[in-house]
Formats: sequence, structure tokens, C-alpha cells
Amino acid sequence: METTRVEAFSDGVMAIALTIMVLELKAPDTPDLHGVAEFLPTLLTYILSFVYIGIYWSNHHHLMHLTKRVDGGALWANLNLLFWLSLVPFTTRWMDESSLSPLPVLVYGFNLLMSAVAYDILQRRLIRLQGADSRLASAIKNGVKEKVSTALYLVGCATAYVTVWASVACYTAVAILWIVPDRRIERAVAESNDA
Amino acid sequence: METTRVEAFSDGVMAIALTIMVLELKAPDTPDLHGVAEFLPTLLTYILSFVYIGIYWSNHHHLMHLTKRVDGGALWANLNLLFWLSLVPFTTRWMDESSLSPLPVLVYGFNLLMSAVAYDILQRRLIRLQGADSRLASAIKNGVKEKVSTALYLVGCATAYVTVWASVACYTAVAILWIVPDRRIERAVAESNDA
Amino acid sequence: METTRVEAFSDGVMAIALTIMVLELKAPDTPDLHGVAEFLPTLLTYILSFVYIGIYWSNHHHLMHLTKRVDGGALWANLNLLFWLSLVPFTTRWMDESSLSPLPVLVYGFNLLMSAVAYDILQRRLIRLQGADSRLASAIKNGVKEKVSTALYLVGCATAYVTVWASVACYTAVAILWIVPDRRIERAVAESNDA
Amino acid sequence: METTRVEAFSDGVMAIALTIMVLELKAPDTPDLHGVAEFLPTLLTYILSFVYIGIYWSNHHHLMHLTKRVDGGALWANLNLLFWLSLVPFTTRWMDESSLSPLPVLVYGFNLLMSAVAYDILQRRLIRLQGADSRLASAIKNGVKEKVSTALYLVGCATAYVTVWASVACYTAVAILWIVPDRRIERAVAESNDA
Repeated sequence: METTRVEAFSDGVMAIALTIMVLELKAPDTPDLHGVAEFLPTLLTYILSFVYIGIYWSNHHHLMHLTKRVDGGALWANLNLLFWLSLVPFTTRWMDESSLSPLPVLVYGFNLLMSAVAYDILQRRLIRLQGADSRLASAIKNGVKEKVSTALYLVGCATAYVTVWASVACYTAVAILWIVPDRRIERAVAESNDA
Repeated sequence: METTRVEAFSDGVMAIALTIMVLELKAPDTPDLHGVAEFLPTLLTYILSFVYIGIYWSNHHHLMHLTKRVDGGALWANLNLLFWLSLVPFTTRWMDESSLSPLPVLVYGFNLLMSAVAYDILQRRLIRLQGADSRLASAIKNGVKEKVSTALYLVGCATAYVTVWASVACYTAVAILWIVPDRRIERAVAESNDA
Repeated sequence: METTRVEAFSDGVMAIALTIMVLELKAPDTPDLHGVAEFLPTLLTYILSFVYIGIYWSNHHHLMHLTKRVDGGALWANLNLLFWLSLVPFTTRWMDESSLSPLPVLVYGFNLLMSAVAYDILQRRLIRLQGADSRLASAIKNGVKEKVSTALYLVGCATAYVTVWASVACYTAVAILWIVPDRRIERAVAESNDA
Repeated sequence: METTRVEAFSDGVMAIALTIMVLELKAPDTPDLHGVAEFLPTLLTYILSFVYIGIYWSNHHHLMHLTKRVDGGALWANLNLLFWLSLVPFTTRWMDESSLSPLPVLVYGFNLLMSAVAYDILQRRLIRLQGADSRLASAIKNGVKEKVSTALYLVGCATAYVTVWASVACYTAVAILWIVPDRRIERAVAESNDA
């Protein structure tokens, strides 16, 4: 099976998840600076979630670029990733509506962690499909960034009941870490085009 | 007519149906474990509906892969399927809002049953178009899985007024039955690529 | 300019307009047959609007199939069509919320009429671009169906203040008239593939 | 990297942003002409935002047509543009809900200005990637329209606390200025097809 339609469907789900979050944004109660100040945390969590889904889209784009074929298992690994990403608008909204209460902040971090795990499962499945000596396999090697991210997610979840700001700082740190697209894959893509 | 745009449109509708369900998820009333416990049935029905639409997307993907051309009738058979799938977010929400009352649970099962019927109509139409000796026709033969599913849907609908849990169990059983993509078609796809 | 991306964007807007209408569906107040009975008019208008957008998608699909190139003017004629179609979920909802009051029923008919006008403008623009001796030009000739539809829309709008049921009957009649895809174009498509 | 998937994803986000605005449209309170009169400002801002997103889609379409390849930086420049465009439904709604209060009107103008800035950043990035002697570089030269637009946005924002109607007039003027697709690029596209 080719990857075209998997990409199209994934693009659809990610584009929708990205855009419908704006439907959840409750307008400031008063049209003045006080209303805007109260609205700021909501806007910041919106930006954070937007960046996260943007990161996943961008990395998914790179990942699929090096993938030649998928099978039924890969389709479900992909749907699993889309499931966790589709929950991001919901956990973001819950976090906002509860004014950053510990449990929703923890659940948001758990959602991000599970998205990362789902992405990892998809990546492993695709590497196995393409073969251990494929460009994809050689593009993804040690995964330092992945390990740091997992650690930061866990710290973020753990500190939610101490101070939610530490959690938010951890989640933001992971986003910054990933905002640069995966150079390893980008390099492999460039080489693959040269070859 | 080629299938590209039918696939694109179907992907769009299914991706939206999948993702907007999250807009319907009402956040737990309280940001604590009690709120989460009350929220669990809602989350589980969300997962069930997500899996169902995922199954339809995956099977639709396989079905179209073996389809070379469509006509006006196939377009409407496809729109009929999309109609029933587009109602899934609504019947899911009704089921949740009514705290799993018998009638909404029955209607949800009816929605799933009609989706299956619509899929069957589309499949027959496509087989007729491709010819009785096409790969698609030989890929779909006896349809044991389809018959078991129909029986389970009917049992699920019938037991809604006895105990909704039996209904939910039936619907879940069908999902598990189908979560593995249709091997018959997958095999035919593989052969078609070899040829 | 090629038509690929115009098709993709139009598919997106139509798929979304089709699917988000379900978000507007308010669940029956009570989970019993009485609630369902009260819900029926809402469901029927939903089906009517779904069928309308399905018809436009199907005809748009046929129209673009015979179109080789578009220009800036055609892009805007297309956006104009998408504008009127994107309003359909809104006018449908208004009609439902007002329990089929005369003005919303009239506005709904006006929305359908303007969609038809916008489609006609787009079609003329595309015919001019492809040339008077193109397959598209010869596929669309006298336009009896278009004239009957316009008349029915106007009658439907006019009778809204007499009895809304006559209006709804007119709108439904147009839908039935068009539910069969445009055979003239389908024939031209078939010939174009033969040639 | 090729532009196909970037286009698909951008189309998705813009199609959704365009269409979900209709979900935000609150139906007139009363189904009569008085209700419609009160609804008119809301409808007009809806049309304005629809036209804006249509303009961006149309110009994005042209821009990508002259683009051969993108890199990670261009992906993020594109996501930045999509971020500002995805906020348009929100700022439009806030403006409406506040009955055109000064601050929301100013914020709406700021949103439009930032979208223009984001588009400019994306365009520069793409020109740098294609090379200074590419067709894209020669298609975009002096940017008079861009400068006039920026000036109008700034005037619009500045006058929001004097009279919101002057602001709305400025934003509308920019829309009219751009509703004609970028002839410079259209000409370059035509030449590029001739060559």
C-alpha cells in the first residue's frame, strides 16, 4: 500500500485538531485590557497546543517522506497517534476551563506523553517495514531528543500537584526542543534526493 | 471517472467526523478523580466511535485501492455511507448526554448497522462496476464477518431495553472483530502489486 | 493554473460544511419516542441540507473533470459558490431553531437559490475559459433543469409566508430533480475518455 | 522536500478556518426583519473574514505554484501564517460578541496585520530558497500593494478608539485591494507555462 492516502487522512485530522481549538477559545468577558489579561493563559495554552500539533505534523511529514509502503499494522499505529492528537484540543480546553488545576495539567502532560509514545510506535513499525538498512532506519539512530522529552513529560506530570507552572515549563521546554524539525531526517531526505 | 477525488472527499468527511467528536466531549465538572470517574463512560464511547470511524476509513482505503473507476451511482452510494458516518458523532453525543438510556443506545446501534449496510451497498456497486472477475470481486467472497457483525448489531439493538451494557458489549465486539483490516482485500492488494 | 488545488480546497470546504451540520443537531430533550418525534423535523432538514451539499459536490466533481485550466476569476467564482454553501449549515440551523418560521424558511430558499446562481456563474466562467467548442460547452446546453430549479426556488420563497410546507416541498423537489448526477456531463466525460 | 503536502495541509487549515466561522454565527434572536437587521453587522464581518481567508488561500495557491521546494524553515514560516489565520474566526467572533467595541476591533486589525507579516516572511523565505533569479523572485518586486495594506492596517488599528467604523473601512479597503489575485505572479505563472 502506498502512503498517499495515509498522509491525506493524517493531514486532515491534524489540520482539524489544529483549527478547531479556536472554537474552544472563549472570548474575554469584557472588551478591555482587563479581559485580555484574564484571557492570556488561555491564549498561551492555545499557542502551546498549536505548536505541538505543528511539530507532529512537521515530523510526520518527514517520516512519511522516507516511507515507501505501509501495511495494516502501520495504519492502526497511525490511527493511534491521531487518536492522542485528537484529544489535545479537549485536554487543552479542560486545562483552561479549570484555570490550570493540577489534575487537568497532569492529564494534558499525559496526553502529550502518549502522543510521543504513539509516534514512537509508528516510527518503529515503519522502520521494520522499510528494513533495517533503509534510509529511515539510518536517519533515526540514538534518539537522545526522544529520551529527554520523555523525561521532561514525566517531570511535568509529577510536579503538577506541586506547582503547575513547573509542569507548563516542562511541556514548553519539550516544544522548544522539537520546534526545529528533525535534522537527522532532513539530512537523510536531502541525501535521498541527491542519490 | 477516477477515484482520486472520491477518496479525497471521503477522507475529508471521515477525518472531520473523527475529530469533531472531541468538540462534543464535555470536560469533567470537577478537576479531580471524582470528575474523571464520572467522565469515563463518555471517554469510552468516544474511543468506541473513534475506532469505528477508523475501521471504516481503513476498509474504505482498501476498497478504493482495488477500484479503478466509479460512476454516478457509486458516488451516491459513497455519499450514503458518509451520511451515516457523519451521524455517528451525533448519536454518540446523545448516548452520552442521556447517560446511556435505552433508546439512544438502540439508535446508536441502528446508526452502526446502517453504516454497515451502506458500506455493503457501496461494495456491491463497485464490484458490479469492476466486473465479476475483477480482483475486488474475488477478494470479497463469503462475508462471514459481515454476517456476524449484522447479527451482533441486531442483538445489541434488541437488548438495549433489557440492559444497555449487553448492547455496548455487542457494539464493542464488532469493533474488535474488524479492528484487524480486511486480510482478504489486503492479500488481493499484495497480489495485485506483484502482478 | 491547474485545477488540482481548487478541487482539493473545494472538497475541504464542502466536506466540512457537510459534516459540521451534525454539530448543530441538538439532541432530543428526552430519550424516548416523544423526544424523537419532536426531533424529526430537525433530522429531515439535516438530511435535505446534506443531500444539497452532496449534489453540489457531485456536480462540482463532474464540472471540474471537464475543466483543464482555471484563472483568477474562476478562483473567485468558486469561492463565491463556497461562500453560499458554507452558509447552508447556518440557515439550516436558523430554520430549525425557529421551528420552521416563515422568514428563516424563505432565507434558506434564498441561500439555495444563490448557491445555484453562484454555480451557474462558475460554470459560465469555466466554459468561456475552455472555449465555446470544448467538451464542457457542448455538455451543458439548454439548461432545462436549471430553469425548473430556479422557478421552484422562487415559488418556495414566495410561499414561505403562506405555508412553509409548500416551501419545503419545493426545496425537496429540486433536490430530487438533481439527485441524479448530470447525465449530460457524465456522457461527455465518458466520450472524452473514449476519445 | 516537495510542496504537495504543505499545500494539502494549508488548504485543510484554511478550508476549516473559513467554514467553522459559520458555527460561530449566532442565529437572529427573532425570526423577523428586526432580528435580521440586528444580525447584519455579524453577517458583514463574517463576509469580510471569509474574503480575507479566501484572499490568503488564493495568493498562497499562486505562491506555491512558483515554488519548487521547501525546507524546515519554510514549513514553520507556513505554520506561522496558518496560526494567525486560524485566529481569524476567534477575533471575528470577539468583535461581534462585543458589538464592535474598540479593543476587539483593534485586535482584529492586529490579527490581519500579523497575517500579512507572516505571509511576507514566508514569501521571503521561499524566494531565498528558489534563488534571487527565480521566477518567484522576479514576480514579486516592489510590493506597493503590501506597503499600502500595512499602512491601512495601522491606520485601522489606530482609529479603533476614535471610531470603529473608520477601522472597519480600512480593513475593507485592504480586502478590496487584494480581491484581485496577484497579477504579477499570475503573469509569471503564465510565462512559466509558456517556457
